[in-house]
Amino acid sequence: MIIVMSPAATQKEIDNVVARVTGAGLRVHLSEGKLRTIIGLIGEKKLMAQLPLEAMAGVEKAISVTAGYKLVSREVKSEDTVINIGGVLVGGTNLVVMAGPCAVESREQLLESAKIVKEAGAQFLRGGAYKPRTSPYSFQGLEEKGLEMLAEAREVTGLKIVTEVVDIQSVSVVSAYADVLQIGARNMQNFQLLKAVGKSGMPVLLKRGMAATINEWLHAAEYILSEGNFNVMFCERGIRTFEDYTRNTLDLSAAAALKDLSHLPVIVDPSHGTGVWKLVKPMAKAAVAGGADGLMIEVHPNPAEALSDGSQSLTPVNFQALMNEVGSIAAAVGRKMA
Amino acid sequence: MIIVMSPAATQKEIDNVVARVTGAGLRVHLSEGKLRTIIGLIGEKKLMAQLPLEAMAGVEKAISVTAGYKLVSREVKSEDTVINIGGVLVGGTNLVVMAGPCAVESREQLLESAKIVKEAGAQFLRGGAYKPRTSPYSFQGLEEKGLEMLAEAREVTGLKIVTEVVDIQSVSVVSAYADVLQIGARNMQNFQLLKAVGKSGMPVLLKRGMAATINEWLHAAEYILSEGNFNVMFCERGIRTFEDYTRNTLDLSAAAALKDLSHLPVIVDPSHGTGVWKLVKPMAKAAVAGGADGLMIEVHPNPAEALSDGSQSLTPVNFQALMNEVGSIAAAVGRKMA
Amino acid sequence: MIIVMSPAATQKEIDNVVARVTGAGLRVHLSEGKLRTIIGLIGEKKLMAQLPLEAMAGVEKAISVTAGYKLVSREVKSEDTVINIGGVLVGGTNLVVMAGPCAVESREQLLESAKIVKEAGAQFLRGGAYKPRTSPYSFQGLEEKGLEMLAEAREVTGLKIVTEVVDIQSVSVVSAYADVLQIGARNMQNFQLLKAVGKSGMPVLLKRGMAATINEWLHAAEYILSEGNFNVMFCERGIRTFEDYTRNTLDLSAAAALKDLSHLPVIVDPSHGTGVWKLVKPMAKAAVAGGADGLMIEVHPNPAEALSDGSQSLTPVNFQALMNEVGSIAAAVGRKMA
Amino acid sequence: MIIVMSPAATQKEIDNVVARVTGAGLRVHLSEGKLRTIIGLIGEKKLMAQLPLEAMAGVEKAISVTAGYKLVSREVKSEDTVINIGGVLVGGTNLVVMAGPCAVESREQLLESAKIVKEAGAQFLRGGAYKPRTSPYSFQGLEEKGLEMLAEAREVTGLKIVTEVVDIQSVSVVSAYADVLQIGARNMQNFQLLKAVGKSGMPVLLKRGMAATINEWLHAAEYILSEGNFNVMFCERGIRTFEDYTRNTLDLSAAAALKDLSHLPVIVDPSHGTGVWKLVKPMAKAAVAGGADGLMIEVHPNPAEALSDGSQSLTPVNFQALMNEVGSIAAAVGRKMA
Repeated sequence: MIIVMSPAATQKEIDNVVARVTGAGLRVHLSEGKLRTIIGLIGEKKLMAQLPLEAMAGVEKAISVTAGYKLVSREVKSEDTVINIGGVLVGGTNLVVMAGPCAVESREQLLESAKIVKEAGAQFLRGGAYKPRTSPYSFQGLEEKGLEMLAEAREVTGLKIVTEVVDIQSVSVVSAYADVLQIGARNMQNFQLLKAVGKSGMPVLLKRGMAATINEWLHAAEYILSEGNFNVMFCERGIRTFEDYTRNTLDLSAAAALKDLSHLPVIVDPSHGTGVWKLVKPMAKAAVAGGADGLMIEVHPNPAEALSDGSQSLTPVNFQALMNEVGSIAAAVGRKMA
Repeated sequence: MIIVMSPAATQKEIDNVVARVTGAGLRVHLSEGKLRTIIGLIGEKKLMAQLPLEAMAGVEKAISVTAGYKLVSREVKSEDTVINIGGVLVGGTNLVVMAGPCAVESREQLLESAKIVKEAGAQFLRGGAYKPRTSPYSFQGLEEKGLEMLAEAREVTGLKIVTEVVDIQSVSVVSAYADVLQIGARNMQNFQLLKAVGKSGMPVLLKRGMAATINEWLHAAEYILSEGNFNVMFCERGIRTFEDYTRNTLDLSAAAALKDLSHLPVIVDPSHGTGVWKLVKPMAKAAVAGGADGLMIEVHPNPAEALSDGSQSLTPVNFQALMNEVGSIAAAVGRKMA
Repeated sequence: MIIVMSPAATQKEIDNVVARVTGAGLRVHLSEGKLRTIIGLIGEKKLMAQLPLEAMAGVEKAISVTAGYKLVSREVKSEDTVINIGGVLVGGTNLVVMAGPCAVESREQLLESAKIVKEAGAQFLRGGAYKPRTSPYSFQGLEEKGLEMLAEAREVTGLKIVTEVVDIQSVSVVSAYADVLQIGARNMQNFQLLKAVGKSGMPVLLKRGMAATINEWLHAAEYILSEGNFNVMFCERGIRTFEDYTRNTLDLSAAAALKDLSHLPVIVDPSHGTGVWKLVKPMAKAAVAGGADGLMIEVHPNPAEALSDGSQSLTPVNFQALMNEVGSIAAAVGRKMA
Repeated sequence: MIIVMSPAATQKEIDNVVARVTGAGLRVHLSEGKLRTIIGLIGEKKLMAQLPLEAMAGVEKAISVTAGYKLVSREVKSEDTVINIGGVLVGGTNLVVMAGPCAVESREQLLESAKIVKEAGAQFLRGGAYKPRTSPYSFQGLEEKGLEMLAEAREVTGLKIVTEVVDIQSVSVVSAYADVLQIGARNMQNFQLLKAVGKSGMPVLLKRGMAATINEWLHAAEYILSEGNFNVMFCERGIRTFEDYTRNTLDLSAAAALKDLSHLPVIVDPSHGTGVWKLVKPMAKAAVAGGADGLMIEVHPNPAEALSDGSQSLTPVNFQALMNEVGSIAAAVGRKMA
């Protein structure tokens, strides 16, 4: 159930509705927009049905939803969500860049990567400490030791940390080290994990599943928001199709569609999206021109020696070139790069 | 690392190898085939590398694997695996049928379903107590209450129970009630969950992910086997393609390919695979003719009133017709139906 | 426009309607079923609209269609179409087998193939004289010389000939030699070619396009029928998906769906459908169990030396084994093999 | 066979090679690049094999190709091809825009569209006179009358005309009216049609097939070039995937890949590529930022009344906005708009 308050509703009227609803045993999520306030009700539907919500002063309408998504939609919140991550704003007019190696491989590799990324102008360091791998015999990540290295890299560079969380058990440990929890493509419909990161309150980067429709992706985000955590970013990283020249098919129209359907920020990952380093720069530029709020880019000090995803990682020189050219596009669409 | 013993190896030689390996801190999985014994080593690769395995009496070769799959493959075990589930054999010459409603909705619905399924000749009752749903606002299952109802249905009918486990936390509770743990399509690459059901030792039904290649599916099974649990069945349930007349595209050639590549049993689910009840019977017959070891079929006392998947569920009358016609095909390919 | 005559309509009433319609400048296609006669109107819609068809004696209803398909649908003709191809019946209770090499390579290769195919019990010889190839530099077929060889093989063995026609120009020459015109997957929506084979009156085997939906496929057949040629067979040969273990994904549920939606016969080609010779036999059996009216199988005297598609071609021995095992399935579903 | 001349080869040496080759009964295609001249041999391979090409003065190497593509590749011609279409350059630093209605519906509709397109700054008018439609009962185009209207619109506005040719028979009539022959997605592997437009010498816009890989698309273009027609433009218009929010999935990474693999110009069609008018502008901007040489956009004076594709057509106002915003991106990547 969503309560849409009238644009003319007073603060007191809003407070009254909240009091009535919470008094009935429900939780609320307040979304105080410029135009109007939205109150999302979380909890038992039976309790909601007993409340005379539309009769209360200041209420324009109460929307009953039995399925589908609501909190993520533009209909419920028309202006863009801007997420403040330790002072870095995602959404709005900023263009953010998250860059770094696929996996944390060693302290040296990570610190070197972090310096490259920082110097080129990115705000976030990415790097996997827990790696979901197709084969049980492949390198699975450095786990908590990797998290410690990420935290050290933040210490040294000031970059914010984005790293993947792969199960409920490790949500708290990853939250202790990271600034953003990444949900990987394979876990986009791991609904228990979505609920757990929803409860954590941490900023979440929700990657698209390999075969997920836009509609399913919006619903996956709704799982997180319905736990009261509105700090969610989508990340388009390519879908699985018949084309095999690229590792995946980067679906930039999905990014544009999300900007139309939802108020949440959208990040694009052309590294996983193409799997071919030569295509990363043109697709990064395309993503920004098409309306993306940010980029996620794989950079490695020495791609030829990377333990995973070397063929899609940029060298430091190529990453710097990407940043320069993306900067021109950002300016052309009225975006600021830090 | 896999140790392939010579066909002429004695029991004592096998015991010696096992003792040496376990003495070095590794775990082993013994696969005692008719032709030869296979010893899978589980643990640190460094420890394995220090052992002079090929020099030991009775050892034909030791295969080092750094990635990929091994334990699930026909190369390692040439004869079909037959899994004994409380006296019901899956694999080999039996053709098993798992049937029931999509979700456990109520005690009455489940018991009625169980009787229909039993009378028609199936050996397993399927039904979801934990339901992964696209929307957080859809019916999510009766959870442990649903498990209790499933156990009661087993009590009454003698059917074995197959039901889904959606997270690590509930592996133990589902194991307490069910005979087979089902891993759903969305969790096929939830590697932490695969490891957990691997450790549980319970029989596992591993559904194919919507966009999973055959190769990835084999690797997912390898995660379970590499934890020492060889009681794994594959379940083809359709892949996601452009075709929208059917809910998914049932890939029967994948089932045939698995029978060639792996020794594990393969079940086919034409209900999810097509999403259209009219197509369930012809595809069930096709699956059996193509070599499947069993079927999973959605049956509901009253499909029009089902809380989920009504359009693909069979009525009792149609399910009985399916069983009769599948029986003719089973006989034509030398399979016994219980 | 379709005129559905009443079951009780007399021959004279039917003749009256036809006379009225043709007198107005329209063409008709008569479909005289056991239950009732259907009159399809072909020509200008304006002319049809001026006729008082529903007021004429014996007419049950006149269905106006502005788009979509009609003549191919079960709604318009409920009983199965049986096509008589030089005495061989396709559809109904017969199960037909069309077999032979991918391409006609030489007189020796073709005659040897024809004998193998004939001895194993097939009724049709397949083989391409005009080969659509991805690269302009690949072998493009023997063209009319290949057609002459096919005709000679028919002379020797009595097999009917199925071969592909790739453009309008060659419809007449191929018709002069072949018994069935094959429309290849790449030409499924080559609408000018569909109209041309429609006008030819020859039996047509319409392969499914690599990315064609069932709905588009039905419409493609409608192009042929709307030219008055009702002798059309569908041929499922796999669709293009992300799975790369198989060359295509054989969609047997599409074959079953077509049997439900249309009255036309459905052939299945597991050779192109899988691209893997080991999977051809199980998928052939599956196709027949699922309701297919026939099979198209690639057979080559020496697959290792084939100029195209060697990896999916069966040896003579394997083809004979396929025929034997398919025979058991055919018997189980009440089908006769010649 | 391709003859790569040395950068230092003289005109006389080139003439000698051509004389020798044509004297042997082969045709040649001369590609006189800035760096070197390439001579493509067209005709019988046996004749080529008998020539001592590498022994001739000025020849660097002779490349034998038995399959695959060659003339379209960057390896053979490193600099971008620029096609001069009646004074309008496609490729190089220009950014061209082709716009207009899906189908030519009437003289008024077309002339009005042409004026809108011209005023907004496009150089080409698009519009179908021959329409390949899924159903035989849908509007199939005005045919030659439509071509006459296109020619009149060119007369009035000076715009160049791009229109589809759907079969070999109409290549000459379409060539008589149009400036560019469009090969539609359904005909990308209609090899006879590709050869015919190759022989025509007309500029060709080759749309990507719905399920065509990049590799197959390059080969399709090779069919045209191997007939001696090097005036080919690729047009990315989306591929068929599971995603159904958009009509197709626009694969901008394919456009970038083609710019890397081939020297031919690449146009992007975001109208068919998305099927959603709201997504056309962001994807047009993305395409240009990603390196496209031009855009194809559906514009209709009144999209709500269009006979086809209304939902993806832009209004005049929205098209003008697109042109303005694309202009900013073009400037940022160093492209000129006319």
